[in-house]
Amino acid sequence: MEFDLIELIRQRTAQPRDDVRLGIGDDAALLAVPAGQELAVAIDTLVEGVHFPRGTAAADIGWKALAVNLSDLAAMGASPAWALLALTMPSGDAGFVEGFVEGFSQLAQPHRLALVGGDTTRGPLSISVAVHGFVPPGKALGRSEARVGDAVLVTGTLGDAAAGLQALQHPTPGEQGDIKLRDYLIGRLNRPTPRLAAGIALRDQAHACVDISDGLLADLGHICVASGVGAEIEAALLPRSSALLGLHDDTTALRFALSGGDDYELCFTVPASRVAQVQADLSRLGCGVTRIGRIVEGEGVRVRGHEGDWLKTRQSGWEHFA
Amino acid sequence: MEFDLIELIRQRTAQPRDDVRLGIGDDAALLAVPAGQELAVAIDTLVEGVHFPRGTAAADIGWKALAVNLSDLAAMGASPAWALLALTMPSGDAGFVEGFVEGFSQLAQPHRLALVGGDTTRGPLSISVAVHGFVPPGKALGRSEARVGDAVLVTGTLGDAAAGLQALQHPTPGEQGDIKLRDYLIGRLNRPTPRLAAGIALRDQAHACVDISDGLLADLGHICVASGVGAEIEAALLPRSSALLGLHDDTTALRFALSGGDDYELCFTVPASRVAQVQADLSRLGCGVTRIGRIVEGEGVRVRGHEGDWLKTRQSGWEHFA
Repeated sequence: MEFDLIELIRQRTAQPRDDVRLGIGDDAALLAVPAGQELAVAIDTLVEGVHFPRGTAAADIGWKALAVNLSDLAAMGASPAWALLALTMPSGDAGFVEGFVEGFSQLAQPHRLALVGGDTTRGPLSISVAVHGFVPPGKALGRSEARVGDAVLVTGTLGDAAAGLQALQHPTPGEQGDIKLRDYLIGRLNRPTPRLAAGIALRDQAHACVDISDGLLADLGHICVASGVGAEIEAALLPRSSALLGLHDDTTALRFALSGGDDYELCFTVPASRVAQVQADLSRLGCGVTRIGRIVEGEGVRVRGHEGDWLKTRQSGWEHFA
Repeated sequence: MEFDLIELIRQRTAQPRDDVRLGIGDDAALLAVPAGQELAVAIDTLVEGVHFPRGTAAADIGWKALAVNLSDLAAMGASPAWALLALTMPSGDAGFVEGFVEGFSQLAQPHRLALVGGDTTRGPLSISVAVHGFVPPGKALGRSEARVGDAVLVTGTLGDAAAGLQALQHPTPGEQGDIKLRDYLIGRLNRPTPRLAAGIALRDQAHACVDISDGLLADLGHICVASGVGAEIEAALLPRSSALLGLHDDTTALRFALSGGDDYELCFTVPASRVAQVQADLSRLGCGVTRIGRIVEGEGVRVRGHEGDWLKTRQSGWEHFA
């Protein structure tokens, strides 16, 4: 059975790449990193009932399992190349695997990402994906080089995925218009878009960059700790989708935007003098980008409310064992 | 909590390597593959209750999670360099993590393997490890180049891990001597030794190589399918430990040696003219090696019994969804 599943996965994820010398089917894959490139590698796990609700469509799980990992590469400014898949599921359900691989491939193909190896095991549903990308030496975007005076920017809109999760968990009958807004937010939860092109464009521009997986406060907080700086954010500047604002009052929408996880947008810092250039570069890629605050001396992330007051916030987002 | 666990793991697995440009702590690790080397990568998952019994010591789980992956590198003739760890567990149990990391590090350190990234998540206990090793271009050991007339050899002894699992599952009071034998077999189950030095020594010698994770019949069968050949094995030649033979009759010991998984020995084919050289090379490394049969025309693996008859065997070992 396992062999058939792997063969199914192999066929559906075929992606010709010269740098794959030996793909799925042996004890290990053999890969050639191009000369003059370093390798960026990351691994992330999704567990049913923790990272996605029971009942999530197999194709959405496949997409998201890859997306959260590609988002890590985006945050480093790396271009994706290869992935390994460890798929644990209660039974050898070929229908599930077909759906999973369909969603996985929909995201992998436009990025020419090749699945080069994997493991299928029996157990409670969970998926670990390891991704590999390339970045020129010295060009990767870390967390530790944010400087006082930098502007803080984010791509896209914030809080949509958290609102999408709430919409799934509390399905209430709504008007036709509401259903469309809810579907949009649920789509943002289930099918996040890793900001790969934006990350690459930021290589020579940004001082520091993270992807927002645990919430803006938590992830920008990581930059602050690693760089030994603080950050000040303007609540009024946080980019929020019309779907989020159409379904929630300002207070709730603000809470989602500050602390909601799973958006997989990038948060990065650039010298103030480069903001206009970065906004132009990312807009050309079709990626919205918004200046939301600045890096200051001190520590931690503070948020200024609409009245100019400092909001009381918990310096945390999603914590896996909280 | 997650941050503390990762910091604990980072401290306990520190391993200075020049080729690690950025280790645990950012969105991705940054790694430099040495010039003139290809990358061998593999991923394997262990699930509690499937791949190890509930109650297995954390340190044994840590060792084995790495060992089964290093065994894949050994089967390719690759030398290990880096690993990623995805650790899913029901609660953020620092004691479990300490034990796990201790066992992991006991195996990682002598091989100078660096843990460069990871993810800790909440869920039923399971561990995925992805490993990365180096091998010169064209030197990796695949499965598809076995040739008719090759000798078939295995390292170490076969069937010990299967007997160890049985000893765990059916603990019966025994004499003092029996307890030592049982402990030996359980040790072989919990702390397999990946045959890395042997794999590297076989780079210029072996035509085909696999590690025995699913059982000799199944794994040698993979070589036969990939190479378009058959294999004939002599039951009388199968290397079996004195512990296995001390606790089981010949029929049971033979069954374990043919179909038991989890031994993580290497099975490989070499031209008959090189057998003596290979045996001398591997012995110098302290690795026992035994000629057990030969590659023939046709397909499948046949086993000749002590009387010269062909045994009835099922062409399978451990199947994850069987």
